[in-house]
Amino acid sequence: MLTTEARQKILAQNDAAAAELRGRFARAGTLVVDLISSPGSGKTSLLEATARRLSKTLRLGCVVGDVATERDAERLRAAGLPSRQIVTGGSCHLEARIVRDALDAARFGELDVLFVENVGNLVCPASFALGEDFKIVLLSTTEGDDKPFKYPGIFSKAAVAVITKCDLLPHVRFDVERAESEIRTLRPDVRIVRTSTADGRGLDAWCDLLSSSLAEKRAARANA
Amino acid sequence: MLTTEARQKILAQNDAAAAELRGRFARAGTLVVDLISSPGSGKTSLLEATARRLSKTLRLGCVVGDVATERDAERLRAAGLPSRQIVTGGSCHLEARIVRDALDAARFGELDVLFVENVGNLVCPASFALGEDFKIVLLSTTEGDDKPFKYPGIFSKAAVAVITKCDLLPHVRFDVERAESEIRTLRPDVRIVRTSTADGRGLDAWCDLLSSSLAEKRAARANA
Repeated sequence: MLTTEARQKILAQNDAAAAELRGRFARAGTLVVDLISSPGSGKTSLLEATARRLSKTLRLGCVVGDVATERDAERLRAAGLPSRQIVTGGSCHLEARIVRDALDAARFGELDVLFVENVGNLVCPASFALGEDFKIVLLSTTEGDDKPFKYPGIFSKAAVAVITKCDLLPHVRFDVERAESEIRTLRPDVRIVRTSTADGRGLDAWCDLLSSSLAEKRAARANA
Repeated sequence: MLTTEARQKILAQNDAAAAELRGRFARAGTLVVDLISSPGSGKTSLLEATARRLSKTLRLGCVVGDVATERDAERLRAAGLPSRQIVTGGSCHLEARIVRDALDAARFGELDVLFVENVGNLVCPASFALGEDFKIVLLSTTEGDDKPFKYPGIFSKAAVAVITKCDLLPHVRFDVERAESEIRTLRPDVRIVRTSTADGRGLDAWCDLLSSSLAEKRAARANA
């Protein structure tokens, strides 16, 4: 197992690179969000639906991390979202330096919103800052309502929680109130959105959340 | 990011501890399986169902890893499966030394089958041997049929793949043939079982697989 010192050194190096990125995004006025969830919770599906709704009015881009394959970037580009795949080759999370290199290679130009779709993993990505405005955790109704307390790291760190696959609620045992109550215990100021990309519920609220966060960031920059 | 040398040192230390455990399990004639999947794929539900079917005829035990909470061990004990919770406190996978300490503390007595329910994570646990006879990967139908190629580490390492939540197939986009084809590409000799703990399908085949694996291990020991 990694020693505490080795772990702290890795995190400190990452924090330095993340601070650089944060400054870059602040100067550009780009809202940056880091999406984290288990494999198969619906990160890519949510971003596909988001691109279809927002890509005409906002300049969007995405860097997406996976252990292997370019599949997610291909799906996102097909949905109209300029995307750069990061193949981590075994690493279970994205780090700030890797995101910076991917952005430099992607040459997106000026962006209003940059999505970082992290590696499918509810544990490790929570510890790594990537210069984002906030982290977003996705929890699908098929994963069970007991997950927030089992993965407190990400659920206490994420400012936004998206409950996905709500169209499947009639077919699974998932108490939305219980899940949301656990999330709020871990993060009292969390904003929670219930969504389904299958029937479209909650996608307006989700897109409004992104647009208003961008407006707030721009207003703060103008007042600075 | 961890250097290659640091990573190899950690894995080598773990391999040594795993070899010790493997010897212990061989002497005891205990079949040991390491269950790995995303959070919420149904590891605990499968073990609950297994305990209900096999605990009258076989001596079963379980060590279960989670980042936080004793929830899974409590569920498993309620289903009649003697279980020891390992709270990893942030670590995203189990290591052999931790499993050994948990076993020493659990005092299960002689076991026919020991289940190791790993931390919910499709990436990191794949690299760590725990003295098991084989690893088992679970993939739920709600996670998407594209996952094997995206997580090749575990799908090439696991000798058994369990497709879970097959009762939800009518409600999700999941091509079982495609998923199984990808799994077989990564691991040609894999044994695949399609299951649902909701309607019971595949559970006989799953339990038979465990019983026959135990019988094979015992026969090999008798002939040694």
